[in-house]
Amino acid sequence: MNETKIRKRAPRKQAVVDRFPEDGTRRVVVENVLPSVEDGRYAVKRTVGEELEVTADVFADGHGSLRAVLKYRPAGSSTWTETPMEEVENDEWLASFPLEQAGFHEYTVEAWLDTFGTWRDELEKKSAAGLDVGSELLEGARIVREGAERAQGRARTWLAARAAVLTGGELQTACVVAALAEDLEEAMARVPDRSRAAAAGRTLRVWADRERGRVGAWYEMFPRSAGTDPGRGATLAEAAARLPDIAALGFDVVYLPPVHPIGRTHRKGKNNSLVVAPGDPGSPWAIGSADGGHTAVDPALGTLKDFDRFVAAAAQARLEVALDLAYQCSPDHPWVREHPDWFRHRPDGSIKFAENPPKKYQDIYPLDFECVDWRGLWQALLEVVQFWIGHGVHIFRVDNPHTKPFLFWDWMIAEIQREHPDVIFLAEAFTRPRVMERLAKGGFTQSYSYFTWRNTKAELTEYFTELTEEPVREYMRPNLFANTPDILHEYLQVGGRAAFQVRLVLAATLGASYGIYGPAFELCEATPVTPGSEEYLDSEKYEFKVWDHDRPGNIREFVRIVNRARREHPALCFDHRLQFCPVEGDELIGYMKTTPDLESIVLVVVNLDPHRVQHGFVEVPIANLGIPADQPYQVHDLLSDERYLWTGARNYVRLDPAVMPAHVFVVYRKIHTERDFDDYQ
Amino acid sequence: MNETKIRKRAPRKQAVVDRFPEDGTRRVVVENVLPSVEDGRYAVKRTVGEELEVTADVFADGHGSLRAVLKYRPAGSSTWTETPMEEVENDEWLASFPLEQAGFHEYTVEAWLDTFGTWRDELEKKSAAGLDVGSELLEGARIVREGAERAQGRARTWLAARAAVLTGGELQTACVVAALAEDLEEAMARVPDRSRAAAAGRTLRVWADRERGRVGAWYEMFPRSAGTDPGRGATLAEAAARLPDIAALGFDVVYLPPVHPIGRTHRKGKNNSLVVAPGDPGSPWAIGSADGGHTAVDPALGTLKDFDRFVAAAAQARLEVALDLAYQCSPDHPWVREHPDWFRHRPDGSIKFAENPPKKYQDIYPLDFECVDWRGLWQALLEVVQFWIGHGVHIFRVDNPHTKPFLFWDWMIAEIQREHPDVIFLAEAFTRPRVMERLAKGGFTQSYSYFTWRNTKAELTEYFTELTEEPVREYMRPNLFANTPDILHEYLQVGGRAAFQVRLVLAATLGASYGIYGPAFELCEATPVTPGSEEYLDSEKYEFKVWDHDRPGNIREFVRIVNRARREHPALCFDHRLQFCPVEGDELIGYMKTTPDLESIVLVVVNLDPHRVQHGFVEVPIANLGIPADQPYQVHDLLSDERYLWTGARNYVRLDPAVMPAHVFVVYRKIHTERDFDDYQ
Repeated sequence: MNETKIRKRAPRKQAVVDRFPEDGTRRVVVENVLPSVEDGRYAVKRTVGEELEVTADVFADGHGSLRAVLKYRPAGSSTWTETPMEEVENDEWLASFPLEQAGFHEYTVEAWLDTFGTWRDELEKKSAAGLDVGSELLEGARIVREGAERAQGRARTWLAARAAVLTGGELQTACVVAALAEDLEEAMARVPDRSRAAAAGRTLRVWADRERGRVGAWYEMFPRSAGTDPGRGATLAEAAARLPDIAALGFDVVYLPPVHPIGRTHRKGKNNSLVVAPGDPGSPWAIGSADGGHTAVDPALGTLKDFDRFVAAAAQARLEVALDLAYQCSPDHPWVREHPDWFRHRPDGSIKFAENPPKKYQDIYPLDFECVDWRGLWQALLEVVQFWIGHGVHIFRVDNPHTKPFLFWDWMIAEIQREHPDVIFLAEAFTRPRVMERLAKGGFTQSYSYFTWRNTKAELTEYFTELTEEPVREYMRPNLFANTPDILHEYLQVGGRAAFQVRLVLAATLGASYGIYGPAFELCEATPVTPGSEEYLDSEKYEFKVWDHDRPGNIREFVRIVNRARREHPALCFDHRLQFCPVEGDELIGYMKTTPDLESIVLVVVNLDPHRVQHGFVEVPIANLGIPADQPYQVHDLLSDERYLWTGARNYVRLDPAVMPAHVFVVYRKIHTERDFDDYQ
Repeated sequence: MNETKIRKRAPRKQAVVDRFPEDGTRRVVVENVLPSVEDGRYAVKRTVGEELEVTADVFADGHGSLRAVLKYRPAGSSTWTETPMEEVENDEWLASFPLEQAGFHEYTVEAWLDTFGTWRDELEKKSAAGLDVGSELLEGARIVREGAERAQGRARTWLAARAAVLTGGELQTACVVAALAEDLEEAMARVPDRSRAAAAGRTLRVWADRERGRVGAWYEMFPRSAGTDPGRGATLAEAAARLPDIAALGFDVVYLPPVHPIGRTHRKGKNNSLVVAPGDPGSPWAIGSADGGHTAVDPALGTLKDFDRFVAAAAQARLEVALDLAYQCSPDHPWVREHPDWFRHRPDGSIKFAENPPKKYQDIYPLDFECVDWRGLWQALLEVVQFWIGHGVHIFRVDNPHTKPFLFWDWMIAEIQREHPDVIFLAEAFTRPRVMERLAKGGFTQSYSYFTWRNTKAELTEYFTELTEEPVREYMRPNLFANTPDILHEYLQVGGRAAFQVRLVLAATLGASYGIYGPAFELCEATPVTPGSEEYLDSEKYEFKVWDHDRPGNIREFVRIVNRARREHPALCFDHRLQFCPVEGDELIGYMKTTPDLESIVLVVVNLDPHRVQHGFVEVPIANLGIPADQPYQVHDLLSDERYLWTGARNYVRLDPAVMPAHVFVVYRKIHTERDFDDYQ
């Protein structure tokens, strides 16, 4: 056959050359670098002190040895740190890096073919098979000489000398020994030829929060109800007196609804009545009056100085203050006068109040994020946060973020966290899953969840499986509120004291971050405004309350014990490592949390039925814990302080809600034997 | 509170303005457009005639109505076609578009807030609640006037007039009727305000193959063994005489191992012997001799003209020819002399032969894709394909693509398919999953699979579940070979005739594309070269064979029946819609395939035990098929031609491998009743 014919068919040389890729001899592929949120468009979330474990698919054509490194740096830094990756299986490689400071960190993966390693493997196999390897040694000498050229100083000389040894020996076996020596392998590993290295397509980012971004017990309180005089609202100074008690219950964060002046126009009366009585304080979320707007303190609560003192008192009690960030205005808010263009006007010139037809919220004007001066509006909203940061607030609970544009939150949170990476934003978006997820991707540190509406075993198992799966768990951290001023679930309305215990233990152990709205919660306040409603009767949202914190039937001591368990057992401080354990029946639910090193193991079993005793067998995944089936192990119930010796996976539990509806067991993998006794040996 | 203080803390105006995003008032989000392979870096695969179903998450802050369109176009076109998307649930939107020509098509999603729709919904709710809507009508008139400004000609006039009606009526109810009228809704839908529309982050691509890319029955044959004279190899002219018989068996593609001149240096003898006897033809994969290389025909087979005639004869028999593309050279290949730089040289000047230490393949030189002249090499390899396309070959079975760089395949396949979108490449990469996947992503039309090594119920279920899951199924199409010249699985070695039937029916019904290497397969050739080996004894790879196509024990008629079933039942022509059906025991496996419209339903039950009768109950997912539990339905076994009336999900099957080891049932959802009789009504 004459092959010249086909040459004529080929396109003109120049045109062809243009079509070649630049890096046609790059043989390595790096793909699927994880964790990653939407191909790196958003950052993964972790906290300072954690390691970020990174995996990637790394492979090449053919059979050559590969090397891969994980590269990482704090965002903004121009130099990468590298750590070698190890192959796990099936071309998946793994390495991790520590997150030592708050803020963004970048990471990527680079890999290359290890010419020396490939050659060394071949030499090893061939010499083991007794083949002549003269030609291989010549090749190796060339590879080592090239390595020497990439080396500096003594390494260069040393490698050049070793290259000579590979071919200089009388005996081939001696040359092979020199070629396979570990010192040569190490020296060559220090001077890799990375000219054809491949990198992951996109540099990924992880956002590192301080630890409170991941773990914390929150306590929501209305400061105006912290007093003892039913005739008036308490001041911040009076509310501060409650802080040591809240701290003693084991909480980390005290979250205050808006503390700003409350509008008078269309103010709501008790139980959300359209008719307001003299002295009714109105809803704290109807922000703004002649006394000021989002950067003012309601005079009934005190002054900005009082607020500063409250923050200081909290710090004294080792509590941190979280403030409500509700971007909306009462008709009396100064912005309505100063920036009427920030609100949506109707054709008749009036401003549109909030509504969800046919419901109307005449006491609230939403801001118009589509206004011409949106930049001015964004800047003002940013400055509100900056203002309160200036007053010691580093946690913001954001009201209804899902009714403001995502791009605004992306921008605002980035602006704040660039200067203040310690600031935490909790999104109160009770809305559809994709919307909640998008807010979390955009930067919200934590998110309210559907937890209040997940009460059965099936609901809880499905929901928490979903929340701890990839990729959601990489960017969305639920903060499990057991109740809120808007949500008194039917389960609590009808379940009595045990129901409150059940929901508390679920929130506090399923969620590294959880919260209660108190003192309604720990006092087991259970009456709805109307049957079938989730609103509280005589809600604090619309009136002053005076609470008897020691009233009979409260679960204060239970709350204290549960919060202490959280503090003492690191397994409860992470969300990811959650595993449901099979338990018989629909009323008993069991799950386990562990730290990666298994130093902390907590097994929780809850009787979801607040009325009846339930019992059955729980299956402890002892194989995952490395506990042999025939070896006893100790479990210590932190709620009852009882200890049991169990053996094998299946163990009997019996929970009487009238006594205690849950076990929170610490599992000790090893019990002492005679061999542990000092004199045994 | 005085708010002016904080102004001082703000950064300078100019610096701040720079930090705002350009499109801060864009409120809509379009995310997660599927199908997509690695965020659109690679194309999804479909075939001409299919619809591509596209979903996306589309949402915005707040409660406004949304509109979304799927945009698509053939790659290279500058104009998009749009089709409206519908919301399915949970912010997921759906639409599809037809693939009417082979090649790349682009698609993306665009969405916007529907101001008119949002306003219309509000008006509807408020007027239903009996509220005064005077202000709303004023607002609507403004929205409709703005719509008129975006409209042309008569629509403009019509909308302007309607805007006037909205506020001009005496009776508000009449205005509301005009506002809610369907004609207004339709007219406004034609003039949407898309100035703040959001688009998906990345335009995605789908590659549309011709139908053969998705479905086909392949028959591999050695043309030199198609004759009757054991003393010499058959010619292409003699091999062409076999084509009508192969076509009659129901195959679509006849695949030939390399037809090029075979090297003499280090030629292998019978059974892969290092000692070659005079007259031994050598392996067809040792390509190249003094007679030519990859664009030449082995003189023992004939001339290029004979090859052209073979292709024409195949077409005559409605068969298509697939050629082996093995990019490697015997030491006698012309390229070794003309382009020594395309091969890897050892330090002693010799060329490195192929090896997988300690195995050596002295008769084969691999090409060096890292050579300096890699562009010249790529071009030559491209021209090989172009050459055979010029001779009527449009299907290439690529030998060991995983030992050549991925970037080369990406480039080569793109270069070919840009001119010839009908060309099909089948990757013979029996290697690790990530490597096989990368080849498929890079453009290979089909891929060999692990099917030959998946023989038990658990193995088959796991593997085919994996292959039909997202995202693998979007880009990798397995072609299930039941045997190959290199793979005679132990199952076939020990299972007798029934084993061949079992593996054929599995391959042909689990895979829309499948193949056999014949006549070894249909003649149930089962002897390995040594016990425990998967190589055939006296393999055609190294010698001429003469076959008796009618020898006793063959399964030719069975093959014909199975291939006819594939042609007549569209459910078997797609891979995606596969569902395993519970059947008792480890030996019976059941699965169902359907077309989306359920017009074609095939239920396959196979006894994997080739030695013993197995029986049990198969669960037919009648609920998915819309068959009531109490209504009989007919199943027709295409293998035995027997028909049964079944009722309910669980039905008894009994399969005797000595008679017939499988059922291939067509399921008819409806049986005739008296109501179907013409005279009934």
